Amino acid sequence: MSTQEHGQIVVTLPDGSELEVDAGATVEDIAFEIGPGLGRDTVAGVVDGDLADKATPLYSDATVEIVTAASDEYLDCLRHTAAHVFGQALQRLYPDAKLAIGPPTDDGFYYDIYGVEIDRDDLDDIEAEMADIVAADYEMERVLVDRSEALDRYEENRFKREILQNEAAGEDPVSFYRQDDWVDLCQGPHVESTGEIGAFALLDISAAYWRGDEDNEQLTRVYGTAFESESELEDFLERRREAEERDHRKIGREMDLFSVRDYSPGCVHYHPNGMAIRRELEEYIREKNEELGYQEVWTPELNKAELWKPTGHYDAFKEEGEMFAWDQDDTEYGLKPMNCANHAHIYGNERHSYRDLPLKYSEFGTVYRNEQSGELSGLLRVRGLTQDDGHAFVRPDQIEAEIRQTVRVIEEIYEQFDLEVLYKLETKGDDAIGSDEIWETATSSLRNALEHEGIEYDVEAGEAAFYGPKIGLDVRDALGREWTIGTVQVDFNIPRRLDLVYVGKDNEEHRPVAIHRALLGSFERFMGVLIEHFKGNFPLWLAPEQVRVLPISKAHHEYAHEVAEELSDFRVEVEDRDWTIGRKIAEAHEDRVPYMLIVGDDEAESGTVSVRDRQEREKNDVPVAVFRDHIEAERAEKRTEVDFLG
Amino acid sequence: MSTQEHGQIVVTLPDGSELEVDAGATVEDIAFEIGPGLGRDTVAGVVDGDLADKATPLYSDATVEIVTAASDEYLDCLRHTAAHVFGQALQRLYPDAKLAIGPPTDDGFYYDIYGVEIDRDDLDDIEAEMADIVAADYEMERVLVDRSEALDRYEENRFKREILQNEAAGEDPVSFYRQDDWVDLCQGPHVESTGEIGAFALLDISAAYWRGDEDNEQLTRVYGTAFESESELEDFLERRREAEERDHRKIGREMDLFSVRDYSPGCVHYHPNGMAIRRELEEYIREKNEELGYQEVWTPELNKAELWKPTGHYDAFKEEGEMFAWDQDDTEYGLKPMNCANHAHIYGNERHSYRDLPLKYSEFGTVYRNEQSGELSGLLRVRGLTQDDGHAFVRPDQIEAEIRQTVRVIEEIYEQFDLEVLYKLETKGDDAIGSDEIWETATSSLRNALEHEGIEYDVEAGEAAFYGPKIGLDVRDALGREWTIGTVQVDFNIPRRLDLVYVGKDNEEHRPVAIHRALLGSFERFMGVLIEHFKGNFPLWLAPEQVRVLPISKAHHEYAHEVAEELSDFRVEVEDRDWTIGRKIAEAHEDRVPYMLIVGDDEAESGTVSVRDRQEREKNDVPVAVFRDHIEAERAEKRTEVDFLG
Repeated sequence: MSTQEHGQIVVTLPDGSELEVDAGATVEDIAFEIGPGLGRDTVAGVVDGDLADKATPLYSDATVEIVTAASDEYLDCLRHTAAHVFGQALQRLYPDAKLAIGPPTDDGFYYDIYGVEIDRDDLDDIEAEMADIVAADYEMERVLVDRSEALDRYEENRFKREILQNEAAGEDPVSFYRQDDWVDLCQGPHVESTGEIGAFALLDISAAYWRGDEDNEQLTRVYGTAFESESELEDFLERRREAEERDHRKIGREMDLFSVRDYSPGCVHYHPNGMAIRRELEEYIREKNEELGYQEVWTPELNKAELWKPTGHYDAFKEEGEMFAWDQDDTEYGLKPMNCANHAHIYGNERHSYRDLPLKYSEFGTVYRNEQSGELSGLLRVRGLTQDDGHAFVRPDQIEAEIRQTVRVIEEIYEQFDLEVLYKLETKGDDAIGSDEIWETATSSLRNALEHEGIEYDVEAGEAAFYGPKIGLDVRDALGREWTIGTVQVDFNIPRRLDLVYVGKDNEEHRPVAIHRALLGSFERFMGVLIEHFKGNFPLWLAPEQVRVLPISKAHHEYAHEVAEELSDFRVEVEDRDWTIGRKIAEAHEDRVPYMLIVGDDEAESGTVSVRDRQEREKNDVPVAVFRDHIEAERAEKRTEVDFLG
Repeated sequence: MSTQEHGQIVVTLPDGSELEVDAGATVEDIAFEIGPGLGRDTVAGVVDGDLADKATPLYSDATVEIVTAASDEYLDCLRHTAAHVFGQALQRLYPDAKLAIGPPTDDGFYYDIYGVEIDRDDLDDIEAEMADIVAADYEMERVLVDRSEALDRYEENRFKREILQNEAAGEDPVSFYRQDDWVDLCQGPHVESTGEIGAFALLDISAAYWRGDEDNEQLTRVYGTAFESESELEDFLERRREAEERDHRKIGREMDLFSVRDYSPGCVHYHPNGMAIRRELEEYIREKNEELGYQEVWTPELNKAELWKPTGHYDAFKEEGEMFAWDQDDTEYGLKPMNCANHAHIYGNERHSYRDLPLKYSEFGTVYRNEQSGELSGLLRVRGLTQDDGHAFVRPDQIEAEIRQTVRVIEEIYEQFDLEVLYKLETKGDDAIGSDEIWETATSSLRNALEHEGIEYDVEAGEAAFYGPKIGLDVRDALGREWTIGTVQVDFNIPRRLDLVYVGKDNEEHRPVAIHRALLGSFERFMGVLIEHFKGNFPLWLAPEQVRVLPISKAHHEYAHEVAEELSDFRVEVEDRDWTIGRKIAEAHEDRVPYMLIVGDDEAESGTVSVRDRQEREKNDVPVAVFRDHIEAERAEKRTEVDFLG
């Protein structure tokens, strides 16, 4: 990049065209250069990929994109302004309140504050004050202030001072924004005036650490959002309510599926209901593993750290503090962060012939990774996870066929759950070990397999783990977030590092290739995704309680138990508490039981049941055998819909 | 105990009678007092429970039992003498050899030696030398030596000096034994002369640490045994050979069931064959758990150490170094040494009514305990083990019924495996926590349950774990060793410590009782016992490979695969290597496959198979469907015998 204080610079526009302007020209100057209309509409700019105020002067060659009200980035500017509106409103109501940082985010904005104690109940008043500021339509004015004055201004605010000394270290004067009589240290950009905020809302309040580090002070974070129109805000809030209703942590509590306890952060306790689901998933994957020719093994969580030194995992995990590892009795121990080293040693335990390959080991292997405690969230961000792991040791000529077979089964599985999978081909990154040729061969095997199976995929350059390229599988959850679940990974490194061999037709030793794969990824994350996907309304085969028999009164308890006995091959319960039938039905709906069988005098006499399903459909006089035959088929086919009445 | 240097003391004999003798009388004097015949036959005595030389003088009241050649303790004396014979023979052949300690053991004796390098090949020469010493029939003479002279004698032997300064600290003069011209520091007792050793053998040689502590010097330990007669020795050696053939580590390697790797001592890698057995055991126990009303859960291995502080486990395990525990990120973490605390927290997660109890959680829970590496042995002494654990939370009025139900299922399970179970009632020990009343109530619940089920048991006073009395289950293995496997344990402590409650009929909070139980104990140890019990010849339902189809030649491969396809519901393999049928059969026998199906022209033509079983019985012209029907029944009934041909 050339820097020319008093010369000309070259600006590259989104269409690839170039523009020569004076060094020191602002984003707005460049917009006017392109055209006076664009100049007038300019809100901000994207300079070399970063959002910048339209007043930002350019002193070197750069790519520039002009942001107008029609740009995607406009919403960021709007929300940034909304954060300032929040700051002003807060300080109007609480003059002692101090501000730390308040950036826009994907969903809105937040502001970290301190020096004031507020809770959720106070947000209404702040919103009202914000509404006044928006209605007043104050202009957002960029003000340059001498560095020394800026530091003086923030004598009482050490967070802003820290920003001045770090992020804004080189600036003098320093950029502030003023609206009305209120100013805030800020790089911008913002919209023209507070009145451009069409709709806004404060959403939540929580604790946060300065710079996200638990060792720093705790601040109060207020979340909000803003849109150009009321209807966009309504849509957003509706999606948010839906996401909250689907939150797997909430549903997990309601259905008593699992808990994560303070004494084991990031590690899941599966309660009986959650374990019923996990067990069904285990059996399902076990069947798929058998189809694929995998043999199940079991390897210990506890190993000496020396296990992961030759494979490179020690350097990759331990040094980053991502491994649980410690010294005891003069030995360095660790919890396995993955199963591959153990599986490779099982392979290496015996001599194998080319005729024995592929040799495939599967394990429901529990691994532990020391994720930051602030990152942990329910089942979706964990420290302890049980992978449906598998390693296929293959000859080089078997790689592509093996991957194609695996991908076909993956397609089958996700279709079973009505889940959309996004395939990503992740290629060599900076921390990669192994030669370029090795990576290229492995990467093209993956690419060919996907293409021959007719599967669309994105390429994520440089995103692969250090030991080999991979196919990553993402699903999109109810919140629109994408979660990496399964994976298929080619690894030329571990066989080389652990000197694994097979004896070829030529009677010589050859190097096998390892293929790592997890079909679901981990039971934890997959179950978290499933809970949100189904909103807790699990298909019959997965439902923790599949059928509940509801006797109308005590007189029908005996018959209710007879019915349950006829369905004893299912997870069936009899609701024999001393409740009205109305309350029993309501409770069964709350528990998301797929089928309720209501039994009273008529049913007991005729040997039938009244079937009610989770969607409140009903049918009377159903012979028990007819119902049983249906649900046997529904379970066997793993139907997603509860469809006896559908 | 009264000590009367110059008075009379009271000696209590095995029949309860008492004898008054002069203080200072020896064991032999007492025997002569009882009768001159007994006096002449006396070899040694048991004084207050400890074996002692017949020359031992008594200065205080004591119980005394006279040991003659007819006593059980006689063999200990004989073997102790054999150890001396070994010592003398060794030093005749290797004058520089030095001796540490050489006690009798349950199976014979050993002597720890140093200052000489010998290996297994040298044992024959030493045995020959020992034979000479036995043939010479030297008298075993007790010699008293001044303490200072004893220390001088062992100027070059710091182990004997250490014994003089520790075990023999109070003695002056010190007791030695002489045979021929050879003497050894020794408390005795011994038999009269070396000629009493009817038969002996040196068995093994290994490394050992002084006082069993890895931090001390390494010595060489030579194992031997001795008997009164050649035939007893022959019987012993035969049992020993049988035990070696049954050794689960040897069979585990032969059948490729599991491995224990240097990088994870005491932790088992289950290979596909071993995992097949473990999976069958899991499913079997899962059925039993369901019968008993258990609900399966899963809890993490990794927890903060604080989990085990309120329960008392931290003090009991951590302080002893038996827990894997460490500090990381300012937190003390540990691997769970048991599952009960986690299960108790699941119980405590919700409010329970008296109607909900018993509430029972089962888990195939992997726990880790930091056993000394010197103690580890295959599957039988491990650090990582997966228990078939379960905790029942019951009302006090439900304890006995719960235990009876559990004991009935245990009886059923062990009968299934043709295993003899020994029940032990273990009662309060020194490290117990909780009041005497609590212990007494719990202990009598266990006692009553056993007695009402008509089960015989031994009482092991003081042997219970710190948190409650228990029923221990032992089985005897091929070596005559007893292994503690399952357990049923009453625990009043954990519910109190973690404040677990249920709401009674009276609407008040009450304290439940926890019953811990493991039916098999752990998969590791139980499988180790099973391997030795069945000598690797597993019943069909457990066999890793149940059927192998052996085509006579390449022409029959296709038919062999058709047959395998018809049996695809079993673990079946086709042996299609380019081998003679004889070699294929031999290999299948080595792999202990229950059934071999031999197929050639005749079979392919008639759609039959020739069945051969593991016991070499054969039958031709068996229609595949007939064979399949049989093995389906054999598997479903979990028959111990492979009986299609039996």
